Formats: sequence, C-alpha cells, structure tokens
Amino acid sequence: MSHGHLRVGLDIGGSKILAAAVDPRGRVVETLRLPTRTGPEGVVDVATEAVEALAEQIGGRRAVTGIGVGFPGLVDAEHGDVMHAVNLDVTTRVPLAALLRERLGVRVAVENDVNAAALGTAAALGLGRAGVGYLSIGTGVGAGLVIDGKLHRGSRAAAGEIGHIPVDPRGPLCNCGQRGCLEVLASGTAIASRWPHAEGGGPAAHLFAAAAAGDPAAVAVRDEIAGHLAEAVRILVLTVDVDAVVLGGGVAEVGAPLVTAVRDALRRQAETSAFLRDLDLAGRVRITPAGIPVAAIGAALLVPAWPAGSVDGVTSGTGDDLTGDLGRVAP
Amino acid sequence: MSHGHLRVGLDIGGSKILAAAVDPRGRVVETLRLPTRTGPEGVVDVATEAVEALAEQIGGRRAVTGIGVGFPGLVDAEHGDVMHAVNLDVTTRVPLAALLRERLGVRVAVENDVNAAALGTAAALGLGRAGVGYLSIGTGVGAGLVIDGKLHRGSRAAAGEIGHIPVDPRGPLCNCGQRGCLEVLASGTAIASRWPHAEGGGPAAHLFAAAAAGDPAAVAVRDEIAGHLAEAVRILVLTVDVDAVVLGGGVAEVGAPLVTAVRDALRRQAETSAFLRDLDLAGRVRITPAGIPVAAIGAALLVPAWPAGSVDGVTSGTGDDLTGDLGRVAP
Repeated sequence: MSHGHLRVGLDIGGSKILAAAVDPRGRVVETLRLPTRTGPEGVVDVATEAVEALAEQIGGRRAVTGIGVGFPGLVDAEHGDVMHAVNLDVTTRVPLAALLRERLGVRVAVENDVNAAALGTAAALGLGRAGVGYLSIGTGVGAGLVIDGKLHRGSRAAAGEIGHIPVDPRGPLCNCGQRGCLEVLASGTAIASRWPHAEGGGPAAHLFAAAAAGDPAAVAVRDEIAGHLAEAVRILVLTVDVDAVVLGGGVAEVGAPLVTAVRDALRRQAETSAFLRDLDLAGRVRITPAGIPVAAIGAALLVPAWPAGSVDGVTSGTGDDLTGDLGRVAP
Repeated sequence: MSHGHLRVGLDIGGSKILAAAVDPRGRVVETLRLPTRTGPEGVVDVATEAVEALAEQIGGRRAVTGIGVGFPGLVDAEHGDVMHAVNLDVTTRVPLAALLRERLGVRVAVENDVNAAALGTAAALGLGRAGVGYLSIGTGVGAGLVIDGKLHRGSRAAAGEIGHIPVDPRGPLCNCGQRGCLEVLASGTAIASRWPHAEGGGPAAHLFAAAAAGDPAAVAVRDEIAGHLAEAVRILVLTVDVDAVVLGGGVAEVGAPLVTAVRDALRRQAETSAFLRDLDLAGRVRITPAGIPVAAIGAALLVPAWPAGSVDGVTSGTGDDLTGDLGRVAP
C-alpha cells in the first residue's frame, strides 16, 4: 500500500535499530526493527537495510523523500557527521549523512538521539510551541531542549548536558572527572550499582517493584534517586523555564511509578520553599508515551517533508514543523 | 539638537533611575540620572520626569517614539505590569506600561532589569546572534538569556533564575527556603557577610583589593566565591550552551580581577576533567563593558524603533534587532 511522500526516521541503538515511516502529517504509518551492527560500515549497512526493508512495506523506495537518523553519540548535525559512539564502536569522524545519501539517493539529516527524542516527544505530546526539556535517564543522564518549537542545540552542541552538573561536592567521582554529577547519582548505571537485581526487566523495574511492595531498602534507594532526578527537573526549569519536563530513556520504561516518585520528591523539596511551590515543578513532569518511537519520529521531523527542488544531500533543520497527530507503533 | 526618532530606555534602580536615549542604530545619544522615588506613584512620577527631562535635551517629546523600562522586580512583560519589587516598595500589580503611556503618549515596554541588561549587553558586545548568558551578581544572583538574538523569558518568566539552584546540599539556608543555593553562596550579599569591610567601594572591591595585596584570608574568600560563580557559568553552559557568559551587576564593578578569579576557578575545576576542558568554559567568560548603561539600552531595544501605525500602548518584543554600534555614556 502506498502512502505518498514519507520520511523515514531511524533510531540507532546499541542493540537494535528502529525505523519508522512518518507521513507528511507526522503520523507513523509503519515501523521495523533490525539488530544493530557496529563500526562505521556496519552502521551504514544496517541503516541502509532498514530503510530498504521498510520501503518494501510502504510502496517502494520512491515513496521515501528523506531520512532522519537519531545517533547515540557525538554528532555534527550541520555536516551530518557522527564522531564518537562507544556502543557502536565508532571512534572517528564518519560522514554518515553523506554515506547514506550516496546509498539511498535522498536527503539525510543526522542528530544526536537524545535531541531527536526531545523533538519527537514534543510532537507526540502536542507540545510544539511550549518549552520542552526531555530528560533521558539511561546509561547516562542528558537532556534535549525544544524551545519555541525548535530544537536548541547550543553554540557547541553541548545544550542539555546536565548530567555533568555536580549537585553534591562530596558526591562520588563521575567518569567525566568531576564529583557528584547528576549522572553518577541518578542514571540507570547508578541504579544498577545501588540495586544490583535484574529479574523482572532490569534494575530500575526491580527497584520500583520492590519499593512498591514495601521493601524499606528499596524505598530508600528509590527516593534518593528520585530526589536527584527532581534536582535535574529543577535545574531545567530554573535555567530554561520549560513548560514540561518529560522523563525518557531506559529508566522511564518504569512508567507511572517513576513519575510519581519524582513528583513526590519535588513536593518534598518544595515543602520548605514558597518559591519552589510557585513554580509548580511537580505539575510540569511528564513521561514519554509508551509504544511511540519518539527518537525515530524526531529524526524524521528533521528532514524537510517534501522532496528538495535541488537535492543537496545533507540537511540540518531544527524540526520546526511539529504538527499533526502521531500514531502508535503497530505491535 | 534633534536626532530624529529616538527610543528612551529607563533603568530603574533602588537608589537612582538612569535614562538613555537610543537612536535607530542602537547608539546612546544622551543620558540622564535622577534619584529614585518609591511606591507605585513615585515610580511612575520619576519615570515620567526622567523621560521629560531627557526629551528636553534631545529636541522635545516628539522625538521620543517609545519607552522601554528595566524594572528591578517581578514583571509581566506581556501586559506591561510590574508585580513586586521590595526595593521600590511595590507590593501589588501595577500597570506600569499603561500608566506611563497615558502620561507620555508613546508605546511602552516593561521588562525585568536583568533581562533588559542581558539584551543590552548582547547588543553592546556585538553578540547579537550568539547565545548569551548575562550573570547578574548583586543583592542576589540571576541570569538573563539571549538565544538566537532574542530574549528567552521561559514559560513563566522564570528562565535564568539560577540563583536558586542549590549546589551544596549542606550549604547555608537561602531566603528561598532551600539550602546551598548559588545566591546564598556567591551574591554581593554573601560577599558582604563573608567580608564585612566597606572602605574603597564596598565589600567586593575591598575583598578583591585585599586578595590582590596578598591577604590570605581575602584570597581564600575570593577563591571560594569565584568557585561558586564558576559553578553558575558551568550550569549556564551545560544547560543552554551559551557562547558567552557575561558577568554583570554590582559585584562586576570589580572589573578585570573578577573575570580573572572566575576564569582561574574554571581552570582549576577543569584540571581533573577533559570533558570540562573541551568545553572551554574559561574562554567564554566576559564582563559588562564599564560605562555602558546596558539595562537602559536593552529596555529601549524592546520597543519597536519606529512609531506604531496603530498605537496600542503596550508592546512586548524580544529585542530581535540587536544591531548597530552602541555609544558610551557621556560622563
């Protein structure tokens, strides 16, 4: 079945690559998953295969007008290059957009995966014009910012690197060389080291389940982690004053109990502060909708919706067309 | 002498009001100072007098096409209302823009003084398109953000409230009810309580002079304060990734020694962190140029440069015409 002009968004992860075909109104019409391959060639090969296989399902390659890639590492969005990604064994500068365009013949945009997810989340939640801070809680902690409906990358693509803001000068040493960073206190990695139980979906899921069942040790760890995530929310609001802070990343798969724990922590912190109460931090916390491939959608939104008059191969938008309904991924 | 169409910017402070006439190219052509008066009526009266007296000097009221006000308190820029300012004895919502427009017959924009100073600083330093964080260090600590050449107020005018981000959970209690906020550790008030000597221009000037003369107690206090200001710089860069962090406010009157101390602190913090070194935080630190009335200039830039086709009295721009050279204030 043909859907007319479609953009394909790719969310390249350490274990799988998710491809989503997005129609001109921003709705997901088809998705597909493949196991990731590593190294520059492996990444280009598997991305090409994912687009080709998805194209088969939606009416052929001619239906695909552009490709957006969410990449889990250091990205030069302007040139479409990726520079570093530990999980994918990419250690040098790779012109990913140019290589994919050569293979597939359409425009390609490349963006850091957290930024792509921020954009896709803003679209999925209908928060196009509001300020959105997407707080990714996974191996590390980082944020993507959508301001006035557009992705805010900052002057050197360091916007949203809040995982490396220290919040406790006597805290544990972080990989970045500082002490007490949010990342070393509140990432999925931090949860795994504080709560090394993996049954039932990983350490975060196990921790929240144990806390819900009343295990006092789990309650203490959960509330401490939530307290640090609340600090991340506070930093995003007191700096950028985003309308919404949306929890995402692997740890956010915990779902509603995570939102509740972070909101509770924010309310506890506001008990002694009328200033904080006025800001309603708890009311701003949301979570990424389950089952919607936000990073792939956001990546697709970074490519112009229609074929270029003069194809120049690499494109670097900020996703300022956050409109339309977004469909769920077909199971 | 007439200069054609001029905008007047007012910087209303706790002790004086500074008025600056700004030409269409953004240059200051005339300034004037009056002692402040307090209370809603006092503020409206003295602002009116300042504009009228300045108008006398520049060719009459007809030359003034708009007025921008930088106000030291809570501001609703959209409606032109001011809501709270301890130093000016304003405790209720006052429609300042509407009242001034009634008196003076031209469009009036009202903005928080730190935001106005951020905009004026970006213009004065020629940083129109770069991201600028203006870090005001005075009675409190706060920041104004200029992103893509425009003032970023945030969803509830809380953008830049970084003075109330805690950086030490065991730090002293802040007025806001939290512990270890940047404001309680690094404001002018904090300096005065740590170094209660006022000869030679106030506590900050005295502290930096004593430290420069080798007083070990002064060196210790200076370096600790500078360390916390370095944390503020780090927060602004790791969140918004501004190109430049410009030190302003009363404490910045210390000048170059303050910049040196903050840069030194940033370099010390980066010694153990390649991540921080890559971000070149020290290289981003600047200071407001001495003798340029940045808040008044920024306020003036918030009003359209030319008379309105249909005057609606209240205007609320973001200052997106950061062009032109800016003159120094005549002594």
